[in-house]
Amino acid sequence: MEFVEELRNLKEQLKFNQRIKKTEGFRNIVLAGMGGSGIASMIFQELYSKVPVSVINGYEKLDFLSNETLFIATSYSGNTEETLKATEIASKAGCYIVAIGAGGKLPEYANEIITVPTKALQPRSAIGYQLMPLLLSFGLAEESEIDKAYELLNSLDSDNSEPLSHAKRIVEGDLLPAVYGSYPFKVVAYRWNTQFNENSKVLGIYTNFPELDHNSMAALPLAPNKDKIYFMAFDSDNKYVKKRIELTAKLTNTEFNMIKQKGSTLLERLFYMILYGDYVSYHIGAMRKVDPRDISIQEELKKELEKV
Amino acid sequence: MEFVEELRNLKEQLKFNQRIKKTEGFRNIVLAGMGGSGIASMIFQELYSKVPVSVINGYEKLDFLSNETLFIATSYSGNTEETLKATEIASKAGCYIVAIGAGGKLPEYANEIITVPTKALQPRSAIGYQLMPLLLSFGLAEESEIDKAYELLNSLDSDNSEPLSHAKRIVEGDLLPAVYGSYPFKVVAYRWNTQFNENSKVLGIYTNFPELDHNSMAALPLAPNKDKIYFMAFDSDNKYVKKRIELTAKLTNTEFNMIKQKGSTLLERLFYMILYGDYVSYHIGAMRKVDPRDISIQEELKKELEKV
Repeated sequence: MEFVEELRNLKEQLKFNQRIKKTEGFRNIVLAGMGGSGIASMIFQELYSKVPVSVINGYEKLDFLSNETLFIATSYSGNTEETLKATEIASKAGCYIVAIGAGGKLPEYANEIITVPTKALQPRSAIGYQLMPLLLSFGLAEESEIDKAYELLNSLDSDNSEPLSHAKRIVEGDLLPAVYGSYPFKVVAYRWNTQFNENSKVLGIYTNFPELDHNSMAALPLAPNKDKIYFMAFDSDNKYVKKRIELTAKLTNTEFNMIKQKGSTLLERLFYMILYGDYVSYHIGAMRKVDPRDISIQEELKKELEKV
Repeated sequence: MEFVEELRNLKEQLKFNQRIKKTEGFRNIVLAGMGGSGIASMIFQELYSKVPVSVINGYEKLDFLSNETLFIATSYSGNTEETLKATEIASKAGCYIVAIGAGGKLPEYANEIITVPTKALQPRSAIGYQLMPLLLSFGLAEESEIDKAYELLNSLDSDNSEPLSHAKRIVEGDLLPAVYGSYPFKVVAYRWNTQFNENSKVLGIYTNFPELDHNSMAALPLAPNKDKIYFMAFDSDNKYVKKRIELTAKLTNTEFNMIKQKGSTLLERLFYMILYGDYVSYHIGAMRKVDPRDISIQEELKKELEKV
């Protein structure tokens, strides 16, 4: 499969309607996942707050894990080292465990398994499979909203000249991408950055409004090599955030390339913003003539680590 | 006060021993704070997990807030717009509210007030005043550990040639600083970046092990202008993290300038790592001949926002 086909597959993943059966009766929710799978966890954490939601993406241990904790581990391969370690601890603590993935060892710990279709996708391209069970099971999206979201993604698949134009300016100007998000898409800004890392093989900067007005803002007027940075800011409906973006740009004399949201539901907007960034990353990679699929160096690291 | 005096004041802040009186009997803890004050909240979130800990640093609302929530709002000025908005919501939801700050409107909402000394410090330089009540009240540090931590910070105040040498290479090479942390100092890596923003007026990159091995790592061998980036990685006691740092450097052919931790207690190490980054940021600013104290542009923004 060409990598661009992986991006076009995202809209199909909207139809993945497996749900977590037991979602009620827990005092808190903990999600574990790394990299692409971790991002689905972090997005859920940003969006859901009927109970406290925590995310583990490393070797840290949470003392409060108990049989009142719903523990959702996501790993496309089902063999991610850090996620397995965290899930083993959660299992011993008596958590109710849901595994989301396409196989591996992870399901051995699980009270419930959400098996995602194996399509030989890169884990980061399977974000729809990882997100949809979370969104549908916890009432953050409805099945009735899927058709419209599908159409919106389809239109971006057909015409991604806008993401392409950002990619062009980044590559032709030899610029470092900086992505400024805001709630409810703070984690999507992080996702853009990680897609730039893996698909485009470039590093980048990301942060969020209003937080950046308390730190990065002070650097913007005087930052060295500022003309070598390409600033993108997600547009917002929040009137305070909107005003902050406008004033930050003006006061610091910075050009923010605004990324407009499309869609009326959260589902549409969320997937549109994800796919938009995917396309920017893809086009940067294509123009740089790097292989967007190639993450063999990360695989090599995993093999070396198994010897530890 | 010269800005370097603000850094030297950090060790004195270790002696600030006010405690939160009511810390037990809550199902969860929520902290609110922006910028420098938000970092104290985020550090606590990273370190404490006897109950779930959430952080608000923006306009987002948490649905689970209730009279079983301990809500700790930190604002040095006591007038931070986002923090006041979040605290008002928490107050209506019946949370038990602790205000940490030096005055302003925030105490009006509070069941308990931790009044930090007013020393005309920049909020980001008052991080000790914001952290100590959290660390002492929740058993993350003991008063008996303070003397040794004081001595350690004092030795860094007396000889900060090591942070200076990093700053020199960054400024002389016209390099972008990249900070790679790891638990329990993921947020400290973020703190370094924000100190570079405000004190040095430079932008930067930050992320953490092991997470970066799932994304940034793929970019490291092929990233454009990689020779214009100065990579710093916090050394770690965790054998997996240690191995990951070593292998990531080797496989991607990247030079990580290692930042060694000092101290035996968490208190010592935490404040040492904070102050170390403060000094790097201070020296970068001094060499660039910018005013590390000047964040007038952020003040200007606040005034403009009051008109909204």
